[in-house]
Amino acid sequence: MKSSSFPWEYIQLGHGSGGRMGHELVEQIFLPAFRNETLLRLDDAAVLPGGAGRLAFTTDSYVVTPLFFPGGDIGKLAICGTVNDLSMSGACCRYLSAGFIIEEGFPVADLVKIVSSMAEAAREAGVMVVAGDTKVVNRGSADQIFINTAGIGFIPEGIAISAVNARPGNLVILSGSIGDHGMAVLSEREGIRFHTTLKSDCAPLNGLVAAMLSVSNRINCLRDPTRGGLAATLNELAVQSGVAIKIEEGLIPVKEEVRGACELLGFDPLHLANEGKLVAIVDPAVADDVLKAMRTQPLGREAAIIGAVQSHPPGRVMMKLPTGATRIVDMPLAEPLPRIC
Amino acid sequence: MKSSSFPWEYIQLGHGSGGRMGHELVEQIFLPAFRNETLLRLDDAAVLPGGAGRLAFTTDSYVVTPLFFPGGDIGKLAICGTVNDLSMSGACCRYLSAGFIIEEGFPVADLVKIVSSMAEAAREAGVMVVAGDTKVVNRGSADQIFINTAGIGFIPEGIAISAVNARPGNLVILSGSIGDHGMAVLSEREGIRFHTTLKSDCAPLNGLVAAMLSVSNRINCLRDPTRGGLAATLNELAVQSGVAIKIEEGLIPVKEEVRGACELLGFDPLHLANEGKLVAIVDPAVADDVLKAMRTQPLGREAAIIGAVQSHPPGRVMMKLPTGATRIVDMPLAEPLPRIC
Repeated sequence: MKSSSFPWEYIQLGHGSGGRMGHELVEQIFLPAFRNETLLRLDDAAVLPGGAGRLAFTTDSYVVTPLFFPGGDIGKLAICGTVNDLSMSGACCRYLSAGFIIEEGFPVADLVKIVSSMAEAAREAGVMVVAGDTKVVNRGSADQIFINTAGIGFIPEGIAISAVNARPGNLVILSGSIGDHGMAVLSEREGIRFHTTLKSDCAPLNGLVAAMLSVSNRINCLRDPTRGGLAATLNELAVQSGVAIKIEEGLIPVKEEVRGACELLGFDPLHLANEGKLVAIVDPAVADDVLKAMRTQPLGREAAIIGAVQSHPPGRVMMKLPTGATRIVDMPLAEPLPRIC
Repeated sequence: MKSSSFPWEYIQLGHGSGGRMGHELVEQIFLPAFRNETLLRLDDAAVLPGGAGRLAFTTDSYVVTPLFFPGGDIGKLAICGTVNDLSMSGACCRYLSAGFIIEEGFPVADLVKIVSSMAEAAREAGVMVVAGDTKVVNRGSADQIFINTAGIGFIPEGIAISAVNARPGNLVILSGSIGDHGMAVLSEREGIRFHTTLKSDCAPLNGLVAAMLSVSNRINCLRDPTRGGLAATLNELAVQSGVAIKIEEGLIPVKEEVRGACELLGFDPLHLANEGKLVAIVDPAVADDVLKAMRTQPLGREAAIIGAVQSHPPGRVMMKLPTGATRIVDMPLAEPLPRIC
C-alpha cells in the first residue's frame, strides 16, 4: 500500500468531500488496497459481468467497539460478516461494496490498518470490493469509524436454502464452538480485560459452505449465529419454519475460557455473538456426509450434530440439560453486549 | 404503516440487537413500509431473480444534517442518491439495501417519517428495498441517524456509459438548475435560515435517463453532480477521459435565490451539491434528440447544452464568462459544506 505518500496524519472533514482531498483519500488509501479494474474506473456505479442463477444480496453495518480486538478488527468483520450472510443462502460470493463513515480526526494509520485487513479478508474469501463511498462527520458526531458492506453472490441451480425450510426429522448441525467472538470483544473492552488467549472466530464461511454443498444440496437452512447468538438463530428458524427444535446442551462445543467467563459474568453462551460459525438444518439421510465434509475444513473441524427438528410445539426451542431435564431456550430480549459487530 | 403499535417512543440499544426488541423494530417499522416478499422471508441474504445484461452495483452512506430540509429528508436522499448512481451507468434500477445506524434515544416518530419517505421515493423510482440492517449505538456515538443504501441494476445491451468515454466534439448537456440541494440544506441549518422558497432538487433520475436512452444509446458519459458540484463532476470527466471541457457560464441555469445566496455567502454555485440533476456528454449527432427527450420529462424541462469537449488542454475545465473572458474551473479542494448528503 502506498499509504506512506498520503500527506495527512488525521482524517479531515475535506476527505469526505467530492473535491481533491476526497480524491486523494480514494487514490492513496482505498485503491491501492482493493485494486481491481472495476474500482479503478471510478464510475458512479460498478459495472460487472452478470452471473448464472439467482442473485443473493445482503447488507450489514459494523459499529464494533473496540475497533481492534483479539482475532480481528472492524475491517475483517465487515468483509467476513457480509460474505457469511451471502453464504447462508448457498450463494457463491462475488462482489462487495464498502461505505465508510469516519469521524474527523481519526488516525490515518488506523484507517490503513483497517483497510489492509479488509483487503486481506476479501482475498481469503475470494471476493472483490468493487464500489465504495466515504463520508467524514464532525468530531463527536460518530464514534471513530463505522463501515457498511453490501454483497452480491450468485446461487447455483438446485439450491433452496431458507429459514422457512426446516422440517420435522431434520438434524441440526453446528460448525464449532460458540461465544468466541462475543467474549473476545468483551475481554478487550476497557476494564474487563481478563483473558489473553481467547480470540474472535471471525472468518469467511464461504469455503465451508461450498464443501457442504459439494456433498449434498439437501441442506434446508443455513444461518450464522451472530447478534443474539445461537439462541436467537434457533428461535428464528423455529418460528419461520413453524417447527420445534430440540438441542442437547452436552453436544454444544463451548471453549473453557468462554464457559468460565460466562459463569463469572452471568452470561449465557447461547446468547453470545459468533462471526465464524454456522448452523445447518439438513435432511437426516445426508447429515453424516455433510458432517464429514465439514470436518475436512479448517472452520468445520469441531462440527457436531447438536439436535433435531420436531413438529411440536411449533416455534419453540428446547434444550436437554446434562441432568436430563429440558428447558426452553427463549429468544433473548436484547443483546447482553451492544456494539458487538 | 402500523407504527402506532410500536411500544417505544425512543430507540433503545436493544433495538439494534438480534433479540426480540430488534425483531419488533423490523416487524413493526421496516416491514410494513418496505413490504415485499423477499424482505418478508427475513433470510440473511435476499434471494432475487437475476436479470439480463451486466450488473450495476453502487453504495452511498447518508449523513446529511439537518435530517429534514426543504424538499426532502435523509430518507428520500438515501433512496434517490443510490438510484441516481445506478442510473448514471444506464442501468435499469431494481434492488436496494438499507443499513441504519441509529443513536440511542432517537425519536421513533422521526424514524417512521424517514422510513415512510424512503418507501415513497422507492415507489416513485420503481425499486424495491430487499435487504436491511439496523445497528443502534450509545447516545453520543453517532449524530442521530446515518443511512447506507447499496443498489443493484441491470444494464441493457448496447449501452457503454463511462467517465472515460468523452471524446472531442461531444456536447455537454446539463439537466437543470444547479446548487438547489446545497443551498436548501444550508438554508435550513441553524442560524442561516434565509430562504423559505428554495427546495432541494432531490429526485430519482432513472425515468429521465430512460427517456434519454430511448432516443439514442450514443450517450458517452452520465454523472450526477452531487458532492463537489458541477465543478468536481466536469473535472472528473475531463481527467478520466483525458480531454478538455469548455462550458459557458451564461448557459448554466442557476435559480435567482441560489445566485443571490451564493453572492452573499461567497460560495460558487459550481461547487454546490445537487441531488436531482445530471450531466450528459453525448455525440453531437444525437444531442438535439436527447435534449428534446429530456425536456418532455418533469426533471429535464430546463435541460440545456452548456458546452463542448475539446482535445486540449487534457484534464482541464474552462468556462467562458459573460464578459467574453475564459477562466479555469478547478477541482474544488473540499466541500464548502460538510454533511450535505
